Amino acid sequence: MTTTEHLLQTLQTEIDQTSYGESPAELYEPIRYIMALGGKRFRPLLTLLAASLHTDDWKKALKPAIAVEVFHNFTLMHDDIMDRAPLRRGKPTVHEKWNANTAILSGDVMLIRAYDFLIDTKKEDLKLVLSRFNQTAAEVCEGQQLDMNFETRWNVTEEEYLDMIRLKTSVLLGFALELGGIIGGASPEATRLLYEAGESMGIGFQLKDDLLDVYGDPAKFGKQVGGDIIANKKTFLLIEALAKAEGDTASELNRWLSAENFDKEEKVTAVRGIYDTLDIRSLTEHKINDYFTKGISCLERLPVEEGRKKPLLEFVHQLVQREQ
Amino acid sequence: MTTTEHLLQTLQTEIDQTSYGESPAELYEPIRYIMALGGKRFRPLLTLLAASLHTDDWKKALKPAIAVEVFHNFTLMHDDIMDRAPLRRGKPTVHEKWNANTAILSGDVMLIRAYDFLIDTKKEDLKLVLSRFNQTAAEVCEGQQLDMNFETRWNVTEEEYLDMIRLKTSVLLGFALELGGIIGGASPEATRLLYEAGESMGIGFQLKDDLLDVYGDPAKFGKQVGGDIIANKKTFLLIEALAKAEGDTASELNRWLSAENFDKEEKVTAVRGIYDTLDIRSLTEHKINDYFTKGISCLERLPVEEGRKKPLLEFVHQLVQREQ
Repeated sequence: MTTTEHLLQTLQTEIDQTSYGESPAELYEPIRYIMALGGKRFRPLLTLLAASLHTDDWKKALKPAIAVEVFHNFTLMHDDIMDRAPLRRGKPTVHEKWNANTAILSGDVMLIRAYDFLIDTKKEDLKLVLSRFNQTAAEVCEGQQLDMNFETRWNVTEEEYLDMIRLKTSVLLGFALELGGIIGGASPEATRLLYEAGESMGIGFQLKDDLLDVYGDPAKFGKQVGGDIIANKKTFLLIEALAKAEGDTASELNRWLSAENFDKEEKVTAVRGIYDTLDIRSLTEHKINDYFTKGISCLERLPVEEGRKKPLLEFVHQLVQREQ
Repeated sequence: MTTTEHLLQTLQTEIDQTSYGESPAELYEPIRYIMALGGKRFRPLLTLLAASLHTDDWKKALKPAIAVEVFHNFTLMHDDIMDRAPLRRGKPTVHEKWNANTAILSGDVMLIRAYDFLIDTKKEDLKLVLSRFNQTAAEVCEGQQLDMNFETRWNVTEEEYLDMIRLKTSVLLGFALELGGIIGGASPEATRLLYEAGESMGIGFQLKDDLLDVYGDPAKFGKQVGGDIIANKKTFLLIEALAKAEGDTASELNRWLSAENFDKEEKVTAVRGIYDTLDIRSLTEHKINDYFTKGISCLERLPVEEGRKKPLLEFVHQLVQREQ
């Protein structure tokens, strides 16, 4: 078993054994439900990998790692209400299986429990950990608000979009790594590099999600290819296309965006064709590569002996290469 | 100006000057809105009064006091969504003025900000403060869940009801006092007495709310007298009446509870008459008196010189005597 597999297994066991509360059952059952839906657990794994860069006693980062995973699942529970999402990881969302009130209140308790998993941090680090967590958590909410604002706007710029995904998804990856660093005893310089690595790669991952939705291999991609195109979702690709398209291409793109009755496959093929014409694929791939390169370079600059970095770097390269 | 008036004025100035964040405006404007709606601010005032029992430097309890008020307003924002309440302090609720998504997400940020106001607590006390706050916050959510559960149950016992209001409203009053004690440097024995005083009096206040809804002086009571009766709200009075009523009285009470078309005034008069028959008023008054007496006795037993206790005791007696 590799180091990473061992960390992941320990983490999963810890998650399975975690109790969030018992009574009233209506409040705690949805927490157990969403936490048991699975997911790749790669945020808490990053925390453990970052801690193990600096200490062999990475187990002291287990509870903080779970704080990150519980917080992440809290945001999913509340975002799913706001986005009226029926499914999460192929199962009914909490507000569908129970109701919106339950999803609001169980989510609130999850946010509180996330703090519970942080407070065993040693006295010297507790204030720093909490203040960084608070900032990250508020930024994630800001990102979600911006994402909702963008739904009704057609003039979202590339810069605005990148800032939204930075807030909504990347700062938590940055914090996950930074937290592992702090718990592991890393220097302020090292924790800064860890944060920057996570933030940069997080933007890359989200852009890759946007790309795979359009150009992913249907056999490997977990979701329906073209889902974002069908839903007119303002992804990086659409924002770039809207900015670059002129003349007939612009008219055709706008026609598809305002079409109310359409054949889904036809729309996906047509919009993908427009993206091809505008060379959006390679533009996006370059952008993703820039963010990944920047993130990995932060990790390479970490003042830690090379051997210790291997599990984290290998894991990150695996994430970078994923096609689903 | 009395000590309490001075504390309240300082607190209000601090609240007015507090910033919760700026951008995106959709996220932070609702927070400013609900915090500016007013309210008596008596939770944070209790924190300051408890701190000033033990230290002249009560100002170091200002930010923690604001944490309590921000948390309380977070619960109002989310509870109002769940209860579909149109008004809060005579103004539109956040989910009415904006929408439910905004109220969910702004509320989430308020909960995060509450933690922000706690983290300046000195290193030695921070873990204790956070662990007590976490427990209290989770209990408040448990109380709200129980309150919602009770809406569809007709066999709620007195014990269950008292435990629900303890969780939903009293533990936060207990924590408000305890927090002031911890920040002020009180002994563990003193902070325990402060918590118990708040918890006990909080139950008394909620029972008094229930009582005033039925027997309040319309000229002094802020809300419509009889509102709970009209809405079949399961208050302490109704639960006692359901438990005590027999024969014709039970039939009449049940008839009013299941009536769909009724004259509001007639229903209020009739149900109040049933309460009179069953001597519910004096039963409730005795219960309230028990909780107040127990709470005040905790404060009297505090190992603090009598002169220092005066402002807190006077304030508490004022709260106990309020008729609105």
